[in-house]
Amino acid sequence: MSGFVAWRAAQQDRVEQALSSWVAADAPAGLGLAMRYAVLDGGKRLRPLLVLAAGEAVQGDGAAALRAACAVELIHAYSLVHDDMPCMDNDVLRRGKPTVHVQFGEAQALLAGDALQALAFELLVPDDGSMSPALSAALCRQLALAAGATGMAGGQAVDLASVGVSLDQTALEAMHRLKTGALLQASVMMGVATAHVQAGVTRELSAYGASLGLAFQVVDDILDVTTDSATLGKTAGKDAANDKPTFVSLMGLEKAQAYADELLDQAHAALHRSGLAHTDTLHALADWVGRRAS
Amino acid sequence: MSGFVAWRAAQQDRVEQALSSWVAADAPAGLGLAMRYAVLDGGKRLRPLLVLAAGEAVQGDGAAALRAACAVELIHAYSLVHDDMPCMDNDVLRRGKPTVHVQFGEAQALLAGDALQALAFELLVPDDGSMSPALSAALCRQLALAAGATGMAGGQAVDLASVGVSLDQTALEAMHRLKTGALLQASVMMGVATAHVQAGVTRELSAYGASLGLAFQVVDDILDVTTDSATLGKTAGKDAANDKPTFVSLMGLEKAQAYADELLDQAHAALHRSGLAHTDTLHALADWVGRRAS
Repeated sequence: MSGFVAWRAAQQDRVEQALSSWVAADAPAGLGLAMRYAVLDGGKRLRPLLVLAAGEAVQGDGAAALRAACAVELIHAYSLVHDDMPCMDNDVLRRGKPTVHVQFGEAQALLAGDALQALAFELLVPDDGSMSPALSAALCRQLALAAGATGMAGGQAVDLASVGVSLDQTALEAMHRLKTGALLQASVMMGVATAHVQAGVTRELSAYGASLGLAFQVVDDILDVTTDSATLGKTAGKDAANDKPTFVSLMGLEKAQAYADELLDQAHAALHRSGLAHTDTLHALADWVGRRAS
Repeated sequence: MSGFVAWRAAQQDRVEQALSSWVAADAPAGLGLAMRYAVLDGGKRLRPLLVLAAGEAVQGDGAAALRAACAVELIHAYSLVHDDMPCMDNDVLRRGKPTVHVQFGEAQALLAGDALQALAFELLVPDDGSMSPALSAALCRQLALAAGATGMAGGQAVDLASVGVSLDQTALEAMHRLKTGALLQASVMMGVATAHVQAGVTRELSAYGASLGLAFQVVDDILDVTTDSATLGKTAGKDAANDKPTFVSLMGLEKAQAYADELLDQAHAALHRSGLAHTDTLHALADWVGRRAS
């Protein structure tokens, strides 16, 4: 087992345990159960891994990075819950299980998503003195900007408005920079925020996050047409069925793959330019994003 | 015009202007328009007024209190947007206008609510140096706890589970302490947080907020049966139609009114015990809650 694979498995376990301890089962009237169902035992935990790897690369505060990692994952999890609802993508399968609204009803799914977003911010402001207020405030700001109208939610609105619309590559990339890119990039930058680093390091890791975020989406579009639902753990072929523009529909499968490779090269180059000594894990994470099978 | 009425009108204007400047119209694909529709030009602004009045009572940082006031209102506004959706209360009228999902569609309403919650936290962590990180972190924590599974969202889950169920007064109050009380009490406490005060002041203003929060709900239940939809600006008689337990269904109209008065007396008594010199506005706000006609 390579060093990266072992690291990834160990961090996935840490994140799972931390999420399990922070997403309480005893929230009223089954809400806690719906929240845990949405969050636990699923997913690649790519965003938390990016936070943790970036935190390690800058030799930042590990406890703070774990909180930030889980906070980002809670935002991601809530967005999936709401995105799967009938008024949005109306999807019944996620991470190989029935979606939250199928399992718990639409109203509970709506509330569980709402409560997960609040909990994400709560995690960033512990009252046990374990995080400096300055770091708490910085992380809250990064997360709020990445999650809201100027980030993920804004990108989802563009996505909604794009069904059946012919987008060129510039417009498609602008949409994905918001919809998935903002939170992926914020994951890297929240890890960076756990240490004091020079402006050049921040700039290059931000570029790494941007390239990786876009590569993630290009590969997502490729997998949507090349992989079956059982492997993906979610409904395959959805974009074409929903008449949504994708990198594959725009440039074809072969060119889309070449573009993903080019973006990963850009991510690697930004890491190199950062001058940081310990970027092996971030390097391997980019490769993992590019070569993943689901 | 009494001093309070003039104060209230002036602060409502300030809050409206601040919200209008902070909820940007240019969020992508109409999302900003839906967010503004949900927030602007409507409501009593009770929560912002509580933040501002509490901030004045403790002679706190006025600029921080205005941000906190708007953040609380954004949480309240998002909760109304989601609560009105077909999978929850399925309501078409709010503040005398069509609800957000009627006007903009369900998907956009869902996203607008999500983005409003993120924006609430963003407001509390300005990057212009106007708020200390310690205050930002404290306010984020108070808001997250009041909004999430241990507060408003948790109370809504209990409310969902209570349709057609016979609750006693203790259970009904427990539900409302979460559903509406947590955010109303947090409004007071976020105002208090804008200054450094003695523990006794915090304790008494917390008691004030708890009593006022419950009184608000008792009066809400009374108005639901005594007032028409046009006056309320929302659908009247909804609780009875939905077979939801209320203070009126539990204790009758007359006793419910007496209970509201008793809670307001408790709120006033807590203000008196705080020993603060400038509690006239908080006192008048409690009276306003108790005597409001909508």
